[in-house]
Amino acid sequence: MTLPRIGITIGDPGGVGPEIVLKAFAGEHKLSAADYVLFGSERVLRTEEKSLGIHFDFARAAGRKSASLGTLSFHDVPFFPKTLKKGIASAENGRASFRYFKAAITEARRGRLQAVVTGPISKKSWGLAGLRWKGHTEYLSRLYPGAIMAFWSKILKVALLSHHLSLKAALRKVKKENLGRFFRGLDSSLKVVRPGGFEFLVAGLNPHAGEDGLMGREEIDEVIPAVKKARRQGIRISGPFPPDVVFRMALGRKDRVVIALYHDQGLIPFKLEAFETGVNVSLGLPFVRTSPDHGTAFDIAGRNSASPASLIEAIKLAAAFSKTQ
Amino acid sequence: MTLPRIGITIGDPGGVGPEIVLKAFAGEHKLSAADYVLFGSERVLRTEEKSLGIHFDFARAAGRKSASLGTLSFHDVPFFPKTLKKGIASAENGRASFRYFKAAITEARRGRLQAVVTGPISKKSWGLAGLRWKGHTEYLSRLYPGAIMAFWSKILKVALLSHHLSLKAALRKVKKENLGRFFRGLDSSLKVVRPGGFEFLVAGLNPHAGEDGLMGREEIDEVIPAVKKARRQGIRISGPFPPDVVFRMALGRKDRVVIALYHDQGLIPFKLEAFETGVNVSLGLPFVRTSPDHGTAFDIAGRNSASPASLIEAIKLAAAFSKTQ
Repeated sequence: MTLPRIGITIGDPGGVGPEIVLKAFAGEHKLSAADYVLFGSERVLRTEEKSLGIHFDFARAAGRKSASLGTLSFHDVPFFPKTLKKGIASAENGRASFRYFKAAITEARRGRLQAVVTGPISKKSWGLAGLRWKGHTEYLSRLYPGAIMAFWSKILKVALLSHHLSLKAALRKVKKENLGRFFRGLDSSLKVVRPGGFEFLVAGLNPHAGEDGLMGREEIDEVIPAVKKARRQGIRISGPFPPDVVFRMALGRKDRVVIALYHDQGLIPFKLEAFETGVNVSLGLPFVRTSPDHGTAFDIAGRNSASPASLIEAIKLAAAFSKTQ
Repeated sequence: MTLPRIGITIGDPGGVGPEIVLKAFAGEHKLSAADYVLFGSERVLRTEEKSLGIHFDFARAAGRKSASLGTLSFHDVPFFPKTLKKGIASAENGRASFRYFKAAITEARRGRLQAVVTGPISKKSWGLAGLRWKGHTEYLSRLYPGAIMAFWSKILKVALLSHHLSLKAALRKVKKENLGRFFRGLDSSLKVVRPGGFEFLVAGLNPHAGEDGLMGREEIDEVIPAVKKARRQGIRISGPFPPDVVFRMALGRKDRVVIALYHDQGLIPFKLEAFETGVNVSLGLPFVRTSPDHGTAFDIAGRNSASPASLIEAIKLAAAFSKTQ
């Protein structure tokens, strides 16, 4: 049995990324068997280890080589910020986290990783560093225009038709051509990770899904034709359903994914239902990419109080998704 | 001590309204002390009582007259549908439920009721009956243009800037003048029901509340100026907050109300968090109006399986709100 090879980036050195990576591997969290590769500055991790007093026996962890448990190794990206300040955005930390991320993505694009788990970066740090991407997702979307942003947890799964757009601009994306392309992309990327695929429930755009055109016509003109066409193509999809009903229909249902037509339609329910255990997944790439459902948490960085729960879920999901590939 | 006088309409005779009204008063639900008046056809209730086998000793219930417990009486609206079919929309049932509702509102407008609790009606039945209002809320909005639709539960409270509009039309309502009027109306209507009033958290319109204009300018151009002005007027209000964060900030906080800028922004989280115990409240009227957070539930009507939980909460909230008036 070949184990999947999974890259993990440590994120912004000033945020909670290094801390939660240490905690995920130092603790007894029963991670899935895989060959894990940490991407980042080993010195940043060592410094964090000491200052927080987290005991992380890297040598021992790296040594647990066995066919069934997998391995842990280091892809050192020797970029250590001159002044490593915790808890604030900085150009140096922005550059550092970008290099760690880019190194992992480069390896994945070469086919040497089946999945990449990205530690939290600061959009502000990236901005200060003069980087032209707002974050991980924008970078990946530039490389892979068909990339899909989804949010995954045991209790709820949501895929977003659009993400970092104003609501007005997001509304303009609700066109049958876009929807059709999105439905097909989502279906094919998920067939790879789950035999039999998933059932998709599409949220309406308007209150009560438009109530037969009484409150908006997008359901009639765009969503319904796209759903019908996708069904004819063999995709298990239904809707549009009233937005304030559809999430309940998917709660706790392993094989159901809600398709949200704009960022907050999906993220409001997801963050309520899957707080701390939610995972952000990019689909439609030649590899799997997951990340915890939280940011750098500058307000608690460097205090040894960050929970690795969401990162651990992200690692588990990356392993589950890459196993079947 | 004068008890509040609260009207309760039985709703669409073909839906679960009559059943849950019977259950609310037949059971031992510890309703607040008040003088309750049922508005509807007594014959419809009697028929329901028999067919479902719910024992409702109306005479005894009506007889429990005491200064502390209050009374139960009947305002018979003798409109009995010729063919009382359960579980489907019909013109006759639409006319019937409208008459029950109108009788209660007329009494309230005359100052004879402090609150009205409305049982569920069918918009389709009202349409079949040729009525020009989509439902209770539209009827009340016509009479009182400053009416505000809000959703109330112990876990979460939400007020909606707009309700039954397409998302596109709702976006156009996000103007500082509208927001200012809404903030003031909400604040003054709630000061009446809770000494000290509430603290209002305003949701942004765009993802991450626009992120300083990166994803939409409505926060900068409309919401922030309106919030600042309201604060200067002494209203306890803050925001705009990221829509996928603000609801968590209000969860379980008795004195916090989230102001949602469109229907689903408020209803998606409310229906997830307050399923079955949520109450719909109309504010900004000269009387209080509450209703259960569900419809006629035609699919289970006439089967004795409807829960009166949400109606009971609506009755309790009406009593709580009218006590202090």
